[in-house]
Amino acid sequence: MTKEDIERLVESLEGLPPGGALPVGTMGVEEVRAEDIADVLSDVDEATKVLIVSLLSDEKAAEVLVETDENTSQTVLEHMSQQRMVRLLDLMDPDDAADVIELAPDDLQAGVLAGLEEEQQRSVRALHEYPPQSAGGIMTTEVIAAGSQDTVAATLEVVGEAEQPEASTAVFVTDAAGTLVGVVALQDLLGADPQAEVQSVMDPDVISVPLEADQEEAARQVERYNLASLPVVDAAGRLKGVITLDDVIDVLAEEASEDMLRLAGTSVLHPTTEPILRRLRARAPWLAITLAGTFFAGLMLEAIELKWFGGTGTTSYFSALLYFVPLIAGMAGNVGTQSSTIMVRGFATGEVDPTRPLRVLRGELILAVMIGVMAGIVVGAATTLFFSVDGLGLVVGLALPASILTAALAGTLIPFFCHSIKVDPAYAGGPFLLTLNDLAAIAIYFGVALALKDVLAGA
Amino acid sequence: MTKEDIERLVESLEGLPPGGALPVGTMGVEEVRAEDIADVLSDVDEATKVLIVSLLSDEKAAEVLVETDENTSQTVLEHMSQQRMVRLLDLMDPDDAADVIELAPDDLQAGVLAGLEEEQQRSVRALHEYPPQSAGGIMTTEVIAAGSQDTVAATLEVVGEAEQPEASTAVFVTDAAGTLVGVVALQDLLGADPQAEVQSVMDPDVISVPLEADQEEAARQVERYNLASLPVVDAAGRLKGVITLDDVIDVLAEEASEDMLRLAGTSVLHPTTEPILRRLRARAPWLAITLAGTFFAGLMLEAIELKWFGGTGTTSYFSALLYFVPLIAGMAGNVGTQSSTIMVRGFATGEVDPTRPLRVLRGELILAVMIGVMAGIVVGAATTLFFSVDGLGLVVGLALPASILTAALAGTLIPFFCHSIKVDPAYAGGPFLLTLNDLAAIAIYFGVALALKDVLAGA
Repeated sequence: MTKEDIERLVESLEGLPPGGALPVGTMGVEEVRAEDIADVLSDVDEATKVLIVSLLSDEKAAEVLVETDENTSQTVLEHMSQQRMVRLLDLMDPDDAADVIELAPDDLQAGVLAGLEEEQQRSVRALHEYPPQSAGGIMTTEVIAAGSQDTVAATLEVVGEAEQPEASTAVFVTDAAGTLVGVVALQDLLGADPQAEVQSVMDPDVISVPLEADQEEAARQVERYNLASLPVVDAAGRLKGVITLDDVIDVLAEEASEDMLRLAGTSVLHPTTEPILRRLRARAPWLAITLAGTFFAGLMLEAIELKWFGGTGTTSYFSALLYFVPLIAGMAGNVGTQSSTIMVRGFATGEVDPTRPLRVLRGELILAVMIGVMAGIVVGAATTLFFSVDGLGLVVGLALPASILTAALAGTLIPFFCHSIKVDPAYAGGPFLLTLNDLAAIAIYFGVALALKDVLAGA
Repeated sequence: MTKEDIERLVESLEGLPPGGALPVGTMGVEEVRAEDIADVLSDVDEATKVLIVSLLSDEKAAEVLVETDENTSQTVLEHMSQQRMVRLLDLMDPDDAADVIELAPDDLQAGVLAGLEEEQQRSVRALHEYPPQSAGGIMTTEVIAAGSQDTVAATLEVVGEAEQPEASTAVFVTDAAGTLVGVVALQDLLGADPQAEVQSVMDPDVISVPLEADQEEAARQVERYNLASLPVVDAAGRLKGVITLDDVIDVLAEEASEDMLRLAGTSVLHPTTEPILRRLRARAPWLAITLAGTFFAGLMLEAIELKWFGGTGTTSYFSALLYFVPLIAGMAGNVGTQSSTIMVRGFATGEVDPTRPLRVLRGELILAVMIGVMAGIVVGAATTLFFSVDGLGLVVGLALPASILTAALAGTLIPFFCHSIKVDPAYAGGPFLLTLNDLAAIAIYFGVALALKDVLAGA
């Protein structure tokens, strides 16, 4: 069963209520990789998410919950019994379990935690003591550590018996007090004399980070020194856990997304899977800054004309229109850049499927309409209040949503088009798109002004 | 000797010609990590780069060449003897050697390659057959592969004897024809019966990529499936090499940089270490698009006024000035965003030291002056040609470089300031900065217009 098979299965399931009859062939879902199931889950409606997870074995369901996006996990956990939650969490690595339990309904979390196996429970509680974005928050507590005076043979035996720890390349070495004193590659242990003490083959120059280090700082260390894993120590230098490369990759990707999206003026990490209102809240402050700043630019231009260039004490309809060009162009540019950045980053992280523009277009357009209408009303009213030019508020208030919608459409579709003709969408999504949106916004704005000129004059 | 010690050393060395007397204490440099030496090398002048590398042992110099930025490697290789180059390249992993040799002076490459040890030479030649951004181009050819019918004990022995291969977590399994048939974690081998055949403990469901796969696609697979390493196979499914996690981290970081910088309108990957002219070439096309588009907006606005709002056949000085607001604001915004994006990404990759703004400020300001002056001359001339308003060309031609310089200054310094007060520079570098630069550009533009109004009127 391939990913395509799952997608077909899901299409046949869509709308089926949880607990409905099992369609033929669902058993095959177990053979699909958890990451692929997770991917499909992100795209389907709530009932289907819940249904698919209910069809999975505990082992598979645990993996899928770790891999899928947070919103999907939340939805699935809302409909899961406390008993099953406990079973799934017991199967996860402690760092994953610590993350997933936070997505469960608030009233169940304490009960689920209390139901976990003793060691898992202790690990999860320990991990919850550290901020989620710290080294302590992302490390796993399952570490293979050897005593410095253990023999190579004994250490290799311990490694062979350990249950699938995430970090299996490097063995960390501690002294009697649990202090980290060295590291040795598994491979070097294999090449060493079995009876030698581990401390004679280890590298004592081991890089570690403190529990409270920022996750980005930790990831940077791993990236910089090409480490296979990074031990995390407490204030006394005792080994508390290890950060593995897959965590590092996640952190680096998350930080890159964060930077890119913040530069574009939106502060959610998964801008295509979050609920619309949360997406709106993430963008609104930046758009409000642009709106306020460019409205101020309009006031400034009027003041300049009246004080230094006017003489008559009033401004012409046309130059009053020109005052709002920075606002119209700025808002359209801003919204367009948000859309194009979300697409470009989405293609890179796999969050947006570059062959299916319609899946994201709807969300972007709904947002653009909401933003456009709100901005149009606010600016229209403010313009009518502050500028004594008949009908100017109406023109600005109508042109703004129209140009914002156009910009969102261009910002969403141009990256898809570029991808389909094998041009890097990042090239098209930057200054080129911004300039295009400037021109479109100006054309729309004066189009509206001209259309209303006669209407207003006739009134 | 710490990184700070090196920096102090370098300060005492600055300006010393290659081959000069060795200052006391340089021997300690050997104990510093190659990554830290590489970092310092990026910051110092040419002579110092060459000198430091000439002081290093072959082992350390080889590591440093792999870790430092491409421009530094190029500079160092230009001053290195062919004999030493051969010695250093023989010490590198083949994939690193294949990359570094391309940075050597063109006339030496063939000779160096011919001088390498036979196996290294074969590996490097093989790697050069694949495009540098393909799976084949980034893989290492040093793979530990076991025959499917080998015993666990024999395989463990082979692993222990292998020389430091990059990928030491997973052992790939091939059949008699060299076809990849499975994978087994080193740890699982340790836990298995030593006399069992490898094929009885391996996982036959192994993910691989073809030689010609794009590096980004390969990195994506590793990220998605949390792989420890990714085997690369030829068309017949034969194992040719392996992509390791540190390569993947580099690829993902590179792709993120590429996307971010392209969205900001600059197409070099290391925008603070490249020579000024290359940086200029990377930005110029996008600025030219903005310039042309916003100049066209000015023509459009004039046409709109003359056709629908004018009546007199001429435009006033003030409304003619307004035509160029999109151009002035757009260009300033564009250059400012380039600077702020370069800073934000530079902080994230470690390319820019967030505590030392002056190191990058100079480059950004030189670029801004070059861009501003060129754009000012072009637009000033075009304005004089296309618009029959006295002095307009001069006003635009002077205001443009002034506002571009201001924007570059703000785009560079605001991220540093934000970093120092612990606000994410990405927040400040987006719409906030753009709006600020809009306002500053408009103020500068009309300031110039007013200053020249009297001058022009008096002439």
